[in-house]
Amino acid sequence: MSQFHLECGRCASRSEPGPRANLCPRCDSPQLVRYQVPHSAGNVVREAWRDRPRGMWRFSEILPIRAHELPVSLGEGDTPLIELTRLGAELGLDLWVKDEGRNPTGSFKDRGIGAAVTRAALDGVESFVIPSAGNAAAALAAYAARAGIPASVFIPCDTPPGVVRRCREFGADVTEVDGLITDCGRLAAEHAASTGAFDLSTLREPYRVEGKKTMMLEIVETLDWKPPDAIVYPTGGGTGLIGSWKALEELRNLGLIEGGTRMYAVQSSGCAPIVRAWREGLDEAPTWGDAQTQAWGLRVPAARGDFLIIRALRATTGSAIAVSDDAMREGARLLGSREGINAAIEGGATLAAARLLRDTGQLSEGERVVLFNTGNMLTY
Amino acid sequence: MSQFHLECGRCASRSEPGPRANLCPRCDSPQLVRYQVPHSAGNVVREAWRDRPRGMWRFSEILPIRAHELPVSLGEGDTPLIELTRLGAELGLDLWVKDEGRNPTGSFKDRGIGAAVTRAALDGVESFVIPSAGNAAAALAAYAARAGIPASVFIPCDTPPGVVRRCREFGADVTEVDGLITDCGRLAAEHAASTGAFDLSTLREPYRVEGKKTMMLEIVETLDWKPPDAIVYPTGGGTGLIGSWKALEELRNLGLIEGGTRMYAVQSSGCAPIVRAWREGLDEAPTWGDAQTQAWGLRVPAARGDFLIIRALRATTGSAIAVSDDAMREGARLLGSREGINAAIEGGATLAAARLLRDTGQLSEGERVVLFNTGNMLTY
Repeated sequence: MSQFHLECGRCASRSEPGPRANLCPRCDSPQLVRYQVPHSAGNVVREAWRDRPRGMWRFSEILPIRAHELPVSLGEGDTPLIELTRLGAELGLDLWVKDEGRNPTGSFKDRGIGAAVTRAALDGVESFVIPSAGNAAAALAAYAARAGIPASVFIPCDTPPGVVRRCREFGADVTEVDGLITDCGRLAAEHAASTGAFDLSTLREPYRVEGKKTMMLEIVETLDWKPPDAIVYPTGGGTGLIGSWKALEELRNLGLIEGGTRMYAVQSSGCAPIVRAWREGLDEAPTWGDAQTQAWGLRVPAARGDFLIIRALRATTGSAIAVSDDAMREGARLLGSREGINAAIEGGATLAAARLLRDTGQLSEGERVVLFNTGNMLTY
Repeated sequence: MSQFHLECGRCASRSEPGPRANLCPRCDSPQLVRYQVPHSAGNVVREAWRDRPRGMWRFSEILPIRAHELPVSLGEGDTPLIELTRLGAELGLDLWVKDEGRNPTGSFKDRGIGAAVTRAALDGVESFVIPSAGNAAAALAAYAARAGIPASVFIPCDTPPGVVRRCREFGADVTEVDGLITDCGRLAAEHAASTGAFDLSTLREPYRVEGKKTMMLEIVETLDWKPPDAIVYPTGGGTGLIGSWKALEELRNLGLIEGGTRMYAVQSSGCAPIVRAWREGLDEAPTWGDAQTQAWGLRVPAARGDFLIIRALRATTGSAIAVSDDAMREGARLLGSREGINAAIEGGATLAAARLLRDTGQLSEGERVVLFNTGNMLTY
C-alpha cells in the first residue's frame, strides 16, 4: 500500500492523483506516478514482496493502491522467466525469456489494464473505452467484467477475428473500425467525450505503466536482484519499456540493485517510427506514414510516449532496431520448435533482434539478456 | 526428489518403474505411482513446498523425479485459484475456479505431459507419439521441443485448425485422422509399434496422472490445507480427476489434511459414458456409440481409466452429471462476462454443472466448491 503523486514526464510539474487522472494539465503529456518510499525501507519491502501471495500486486509499496484498497485482479503477473539453453548457446548469450503469454487473457496487456482498471474502479469510474490493436481490448474486456463495469472497445477491422469474439465473450461492446489504431484512438476519444466513459488509451492515463513495470520487478527478483545486462522489448506504444526503465530506477532508489540494464526496442521494418527517430538522433518520433506489419502489437505509427522511450534507450545506452515480419515469424518458430516457448510473433521479433544485436556487437559474448514474449501464439 | 514404485490400479501388483513404463504387465491396466514418504515427514515437506520456486515440480517428494534429476519444464503449474464472488453469491456457494488456461500451451494438459515427458526423457526415450483431441497434442509438441526429442501427433481432422498450426509451430509431425480420438489411439499405437516411439496415450503410461494431481495439491495449499467440500471436473479421459483423488489420499497419508472432497465428473450429454455407467451402477463404462459434442476435450467415448474414475466418485460420495453443449457455452460466457475468466467451454461445463448440482441439492448452501477451467478460450 503506497502514497503517491503524479509528475509530468515532460514538464515535470506535480499534481495530485484525483479521479480520472489523465494527461498533464499543463502540457498535455503523459504523467508518471511517483512514490514516497524511503530508501531505508528497501530491505523490509523486499522481504514483504517475497512473502506475499503471488501476482503483481505483491509489489504494492510501489503500485498505485492505498491502504485498505483491493485490486481488481485475475491473478495476473508472476509469469515464468525461462532459460533458453539451446538458443542461448547458439547466440553465445545467457539468454532468457519472460513468458507474458501466461497472463489471464494471454498477453502482457493484462498487467497494465489490470492496474488502470483497479485505480479507475476505486476512483468511481462507471464505464470504460479503449482503442486497441487487439490484446489491450481483450484485457480491458476481461478486467472490466471482473470489476462489473461496462466497457467499449474500438478495434481495427483487420485484427484477427478471435479478438472480437474474445471481447464479446467478456461482455464488451465492440466497434470494428476501417483504419489503424490511431483512427480507433480518435473514435474512442469521441466516445469518451460524448458518453463520459473513461479512456484507457496508452499513456493517456498514468497507471498502465505501473502495471507493466512489474514485469521488470519480477525479472530482477528472479535473477537474485542482479539486473540483466540487456532486455529486448517489442515496442509499439512502449509502455512496458518505459515501465521497465522506471522499475529499475525505483529499485535503485530503494537500494535494492546497483547498475542498470541496456534496453533495446524492436519494431517491425514496416512500422518503425522509434527506430527512424533513433537513427536520426531525434528526441521524438514523427508519425510513420504507411504502417505495414502483421505484428498487430507493433502496428503503432505514433506513440504518445515516444520521447520517454527514446529517453530510456539513451539513458541505458541501448538502441532501437527493426526486423522484418519474416524474421519475426522465424524467431517465433525457433522459440517454439527449439525451446517449446508459446510465442506470438512480437515475441519472435525479440529473438530476431537479439541475433542482429549480437552480429553487430551490441550484445557481447556471455551477456545475460532477457527477451520479452509479450503474448502467446494463441492470441493470433 | 522421491523414491517410488508402480502399482496396478486394478490388480494391485507391484512393479519397478523401469524405462518406458506402461500398462500393468499382468493385467494390462493403468498403473499408479506409489511413493515412500514417511507420515512423519509431512510438516517438513509442506515447508519445503512453500519455500521452493513456483511451479509444479516443487512438490517433488511426491512426483516421479529422483535426486539430481532435472525436469523438462516450461514453468507449468501454480495457476491462480480465483474466487467467483458474483457467481458464487448467485448460486449460494463459496465458489472458486482453478484457472488452468494459464499453463504454457493454454491448458491443464501441460502438467501431465510435462511429467510424462520428463520421466521418459530421463529414461532415455528417443521419440514420442500421442493421439489427442487437441490440447494434449499441443502440450506434447511443446514439451518434446523443450526436451529436444521428436514427437508425432495423431489428431481428429475436425479439431480446431489452430491445434494443428500450434503443433507444427512447436516442430511436431502432425497426422490428421478422419475419425475420433479412439481411432487416433489405434494409429498412434501402430506408429509406436513400427517406429519404437513412446506412446503417451492417456493412462497408458503412469506419469501423466502425477503431473495432473498437482492441481489439487495447489488448491489445498492455497486454501490453507483445508480440502474444498467439492470439485467439479470436466471429464474426458479423467486423468485429472483420478489425480485429484490420489493427491488427497497422499496428503492424508502425510498427515497434512483431514477429510476429503466430493468429486463431480461433468460430461457432455452428447458423449457421457461415465455418467451412463454411474447411473446404471456399473464399475466400468461401456464405449459411447455416437460421440457428439463441440467440447473436444470431452469427446472421449471410452476412457481407459473408467474404473478408477467411477471408484473416485464412489469413494468421495460425488457423482457424474451431463450438460448440453449449449449449457456449456452459456457457462463459459457467464464466467467471461460476469467474472472476467478466460474459459474454454469445458470450463463453462463446470459452471453449468454446479448450477444443476445446486438445484438437485447435491451442493449445499455455502459449501466451498472449486471449478476446473481446464483451458482458455483461445485454445478453440
